[in-house]
Amino acid sequence: MAGDKKVNVGVLGATGTVGQRFIALLATHPYFVVHALGASERSAGKPYAKAVNWKQTDPIPSYVRDLVVQTCDPKHFKQCAIVFSGLDADVAGDIEAAFRSADLAVFSNAKSYRRDPHVPLIVPLVNPSHFSIIPQQRALHSPPLKKGFIVTNANCSTTAVVVPLAALERAFGPIESCIITTMQAISGAGYPGVPSLDIFDNIVPYISGEEEKMEWETLKILGGIAEGDDGTKEFDMHSKTPLRISASCNRVPVIEGHTETVSIRFARRPPPSPQQVREALQAYTPDTAGCPSAPRQAVFVHEEPDRPQPRLDRNHQFGSGVSVGRVRQCRVLDIKFVVLANNVNIGAATSSIINAEIAIAKGVVSV
Amino acid sequence: MAGDKKVNVGVLGATGTVGQRFIALLATHPYFVVHALGASERSAGKPYAKAVNWKQTDPIPSYVRDLVVQTCDPKHFKQCAIVFSGLDADVAGDIEAAFRSADLAVFSNAKSYRRDPHVPLIVPLVNPSHFSIIPQQRALHSPPLKKGFIVTNANCSTTAVVVPLAALERAFGPIESCIITTMQAISGAGYPGVPSLDIFDNIVPYISGEEEKMEWETLKILGGIAEGDDGTKEFDMHSKTPLRISASCNRVPVIEGHTETVSIRFARRPPPSPQQVREALQAYTPDTAGCPSAPRQAVFVHEEPDRPQPRLDRNHQFGSGVSVGRVRQCRVLDIKFVVLANNVNIGAATSSIINAEIAIAKGVVSV
Amino acid sequence: MAGDKKVNVGVLGATGTVGQRFIALLATHPYFVVHALGASERSAGKPYAKAVNWKQTDPIPSYVRDLVVQTCDPKHFKQCAIVFSGLDADVAGDIEAAFRSADLAVFSNAKSYRRDPHVPLIVPLVNPSHFSIIPQQRALHSPPLKKGFIVTNANCSTTAVVVPLAALERAFGPIESCIITTMQAISGAGYPGVPSLDIFDNIVPYISGEEEKMEWETLKILGGIAEGDDGTKEFDMHSKTPLRISASCNRVPVIEGHTETVSIRFARRPPPSPQQVREALQAYTPDTAGCPSAPRQAVFVHEEPDRPQPRLDRNHQFGSGVSVGRVRQCRVLDIKFVVLANNVNIGAATSSIINAEIAIAKGVVSV
Amino acid sequence: MAGDKKVNVGVLGATGTVGQRFIALLATHPYFVVHALGASERSAGKPYAKAVNWKQTDPIPSYVRDLVVQTCDPKHFKQCAIVFSGLDADVAGDIEAAFRSADLAVFSNAKSYRRDPHVPLIVPLVNPSHFSIIPQQRALHSPPLKKGFIVTNANCSTTAVVVPLAALERAFGPIESCIITTMQAISGAGYPGVPSLDIFDNIVPYISGEEEKMEWETLKILGGIAEGDDGTKEFDMHSKTPLRISASCNRVPVIEGHTETVSIRFARRPPPSPQQVREALQAYTPDTAGCPSAPRQAVFVHEEPDRPQPRLDRNHQFGSGVSVGRVRQCRVLDIKFVVLANNVNIGAATSSIINAEIAIAKGVVSV
Repeated sequence: MAGDKKVNVGVLGATGTVGQRFIALLATHPYFVVHALGASERSAGKPYAKAVNWKQTDPIPSYVRDLVVQTCDPKHFKQCAIVFSGLDADVAGDIEAAFRSADLAVFSNAKSYRRDPHVPLIVPLVNPSHFSIIPQQRALHSPPLKKGFIVTNANCSTTAVVVPLAALERAFGPIESCIITTMQAISGAGYPGVPSLDIFDNIVPYISGEEEKMEWETLKILGGIAEGDDGTKEFDMHSKTPLRISASCNRVPVIEGHTETVSIRFARRPPPSPQQVREALQAYTPDTAGCPSAPRQAVFVHEEPDRPQPRLDRNHQFGSGVSVGRVRQCRVLDIKFVVLANNVNIGAATSSIINAEIAIAKGVVSV
Repeated sequence: MAGDKKVNVGVLGATGTVGQRFIALLATHPYFVVHALGASERSAGKPYAKAVNWKQTDPIPSYVRDLVVQTCDPKHFKQCAIVFSGLDADVAGDIEAAFRSADLAVFSNAKSYRRDPHVPLIVPLVNPSHFSIIPQQRALHSPPLKKGFIVTNANCSTTAVVVPLAALERAFGPIESCIITTMQAISGAGYPGVPSLDIFDNIVPYISGEEEKMEWETLKILGGIAEGDDGTKEFDMHSKTPLRISASCNRVPVIEGHTETVSIRFARRPPPSPQQVREALQAYTPDTAGCPSAPRQAVFVHEEPDRPQPRLDRNHQFGSGVSVGRVRQCRVLDIKFVVLANNVNIGAATSSIINAEIAIAKGVVSV
Repeated sequence: MAGDKKVNVGVLGATGTVGQRFIALLATHPYFVVHALGASERSAGKPYAKAVNWKQTDPIPSYVRDLVVQTCDPKHFKQCAIVFSGLDADVAGDIEAAFRSADLAVFSNAKSYRRDPHVPLIVPLVNPSHFSIIPQQRALHSPPLKKGFIVTNANCSTTAVVVPLAALERAFGPIESCIITTMQAISGAGYPGVPSLDIFDNIVPYISGEEEKMEWETLKILGGIAEGDDGTKEFDMHSKTPLRISASCNRVPVIEGHTETVSIRFARRPPPSPQQVREALQAYTPDTAGCPSAPRQAVFVHEEPDRPQPRLDRNHQFGSGVSVGRVRQCRVLDIKFVVLANNVNIGAATSSIINAEIAIAKGVVSV
Repeated sequence: MAGDKKVNVGVLGATGTVGQRFIALLATHPYFVVHALGASERSAGKPYAKAVNWKQTDPIPSYVRDLVVQTCDPKHFKQCAIVFSGLDADVAGDIEAAFRSADLAVFSNAKSYRRDPHVPLIVPLVNPSHFSIIPQQRALHSPPLKKGFIVTNANCSTTAVVVPLAALERAFGPIESCIITTMQAISGAGYPGVPSLDIFDNIVPYISGEEEKMEWETLKILGGIAEGDDGTKEFDMHSKTPLRISASCNRVPVIEGHTETVSIRFARRPPPSPQQVREALQAYTPDTAGCPSAPRQAVFVHEEPDRPQPRLDRNHQFGSGVSVGRVRQCRVLDIKFVVLANNVNIGAATSSIINAEIAIAKGVVSV
């Protein structure tokens, strides 16, 4: 990002859980400036501080307190080079499409377009190369777009696991199979989200649709892009070396931070040792140079036997990286470890923000 | 159990967490009568109600309030046909040995003798047949014992998983591999146990020694007993069909009830379907006929997608059985499911009590 | 209750939190038999086990699993001598009125009629004498009723405090002022009730309308009934000796059991000593003779310095009494103490059930 | 604080809960530089990062990771102008005395000297004027001291309430009586502190010695200093206008932040209105000018009906102020409100740090 140029951004779903996190994070961003806030009719017309039921532990940033909330209509966001969407899935589909049609660049947290064959599903610490599908996405639009597009980021529980998997595939080649058990924080369900009576002193061993998302999204993110004879690009879903993933998802009484146990089997024989795995994770450097919100250490590897822990480690690097610990041999597959990611930061808003920083750095968005 | 005969029992470690549970459970037992209570010097000489820091949700049973606590010396327990031990591992070894030497029948929750080649590790819903090693245990003692022996029950997290594994091996033959992630309740760590600052809004992805216990104990419990040419019996550790187990153990902010996700691969090809697995679990009948504390349904299979849950299901059948839910295909191994067991009931005190009932029914203890 | 006569009862709001508790409690009742269940259109026509999202720690009683849920129309409840209402306040008003008009005896947990000048607000351990207003309630109905009436029980936080206050007024005469701080369990807010994100690791120092309810209801319950020259009865709101009450209500992260700190000043000088207060509380005997659901000890007085505690004491006597502890001098008023009551038992369903038992014993309901 | 001068400070009890908070807070202090760390023999000789079991949500500040921990012997702290003590009460008495005798300025969180007639008990937002007793404290030492002294700060639950009380006495004159109920976080009990089994889904309505501390400390802090004919100074314990305080202390399942309900009666008739109270609290300006760690707003007054809440408000201004909400009339005394203070910041370490800043500003410590 050359010079001191500021970039206007908008936030859709600004009063929701993810929207609040966007606003908290953008308060100290070096060049993104929140220019417009979108929410439902109920909130539109009110100053943000009146419209929102603020649930963050830090106070509402002063810069948005008096910003008047708009409806989610593209006309209010024309001056935004970037639009972050924290919309709920039930409304995100139509609104995000309308924004794209209005030639706006949309960075979405919703699941609506994750499975779209022309929309990249980008975890910034893993697959920024998937931005290469954007020209095709624009070209296929009718009429073709100049600037508009949609990029999604992954489900929070997927994000946690794909970062170490990407690091290990880069170092040791394809992974063949992966068994994951998640212990997911209540904040992952939004607000009001999980009733307290359902989760106090309890575990709910089921999150609707979550296991399918993890099993499917991982393939799209870790896979490459195949190019047909006619130049058409297509996500290959890791099909050159099939990867089998099995997830068991649980809701646990933790406020923030998804913890996951992971067992993997590499294609290569013999597999790397735990120590080699540790070193490869620690050495992993994603393609996020020049992105101010990216973590300095993408994967922080803990040596203590009892870490990472959500309460102690979720805020490390402002929740922008992932933490891995307990790397050791698995008696059934090859290697097992524990991964922790802050579901509302790298698992949601922070991912979108870094994605936008990458898009600017790559010239996908021009400012 | 013929007639209305009452059986005197003793409880060692009576003031501790497991000891309290023994006392609560025995309060309504049809024939066991608490005759003697053993605890440390500090408690000895006091009426139980004064000696104990009672932490159960039900009040202290009136029948023991005024019973005077003794030291853990066999001389105070001579009239007990059964001695239940809820002692901590650091003292259990010596005390339980002394009780056995005094020709007393000891049913222990401690880990001290679980790996002893002559001590059976019995989960009552799984391997009561292992009582057959008792004559050898007695004979090897010097001098040989007439009535004394030690039986242990398994670690609470092991107990949860071996019950469905035993059911499935009985129905479908050997299991080849098993990956388990546990989410274990704080009560499994005793009292004072886990500091609140360590586990509020948190997960600790490590429990010292727990994974090794699960991986080892499961083999001893699910294995058979080999007989040498000289008639010497030996636990075969499931060696005829090797079974690989990989456990990841976590402490979670739940008071009672261990929840575990389990993925398994059968030796037999093709493997059974999820529906066949469900039916086999539901149909499983352990060898506990005539044991009043045994559950009517050893494995309760939930059909709802979001069960079992510790807070809602841990007290089903007074916590004497295990609950299984979410039986479905695993993309990496064959089948995966969720299992829940009440760690302080079937995972601890209830197991010892049913073991004692079995010992009486089998004539291992004569009353 | 003479003989073995069974009494048919109905439950309105049967699928809700209070309704579930009614059903759990009535499962073992000596003479009440659940004959009809009422809920919303959405549930009507389904067997109870299919209609309900059961949240109790004990399983659904088998006796109601297949009972078909009805709409809340009096015609389905004609054979019920008693109708318990666990309806939400937003619908309770009209439905309960319709049931009364249909000459049915309604025992309500809702707040709708608590302030009605002809409806008694009865805490069974305190003011069963207020049933004496029922004839007037019936007579004022148009047309006058023979059997129908509405009785309400108090708000759960009020119930906790009025029991010891009643005991102390009986022993020592009028109380002049009372300052209360409540720490109320999440189950008091029903289901889905309090979002987990609002109450994990948190306290909410406000419950809408709760302080006003406590301050007003206490006066109605502890007051007497004045009779005008024309024989008209009227609740006197403790006006002969004015009682000032000040409540501060808080929601805390506890599942069940409301804990309250209470400071009081007596009219009489000198006031009783803490020891006299303890004895009076312990000796208090409400007018619930012959009621099988009433506690044997209305007020259980703890001697330990750190009791009562909700998790340890809320199930004492099946939650039908209240627990008091830490009776000591108050440097500002006279005496202070801690009170605990199970908000879903004596604070809700159990109160209605005992009220119904009293009504039968007094002949207000004839069976 | 003139210029850019750095001031060396030491931290005693550096590995404990309060010590960790000191170290976290001092990491970004404008002029205090941690020069020496003291802990028990067990930790001495190790780099801090090895000695400590770090429990803060932010990582160990890099500046202390390799600092070698010393024993708590004054000889290691000679170059420290300020020594902060986070020692446990059982060892603080002797060690702090030894440090004072070695002519060091000790700012203590322990209770050991709070009742000492020559040691001021200073809540920095309330009574910095009590530093005037220091010359007398030094003079009475044998031999008289030049620089050494001990200053204590208050118990965390006292600190919360004395700030608004001081603000109100300044505005409206003496307060006559005050009834307080506290809901105190588990972090107030240190580490390991409260066992999780004691406080999950529970409230403990008792904290040993806490009520006495609140009732006594408040008088010392809010009182003045009387001077005898011989010039001897003495804390007057608010005796000119007696103040009666009654506290009920509870431990609640909250990690950080003490919430307290407070009812007060003023001497002056008529008392101020809620609105006047709100304005006086908001306008309150303590004597902390030039102290970089002091809050900009000593008392933050919330207008929303459901605030303050510990999880949402404890980090406001880095926990250096107190939050008040729900200011309203009390039907028994005059006014009631809710106060929240971060028990580990303004309730502990932050208070000591501001006290040290004041001591430098007043010249009590010369640097």
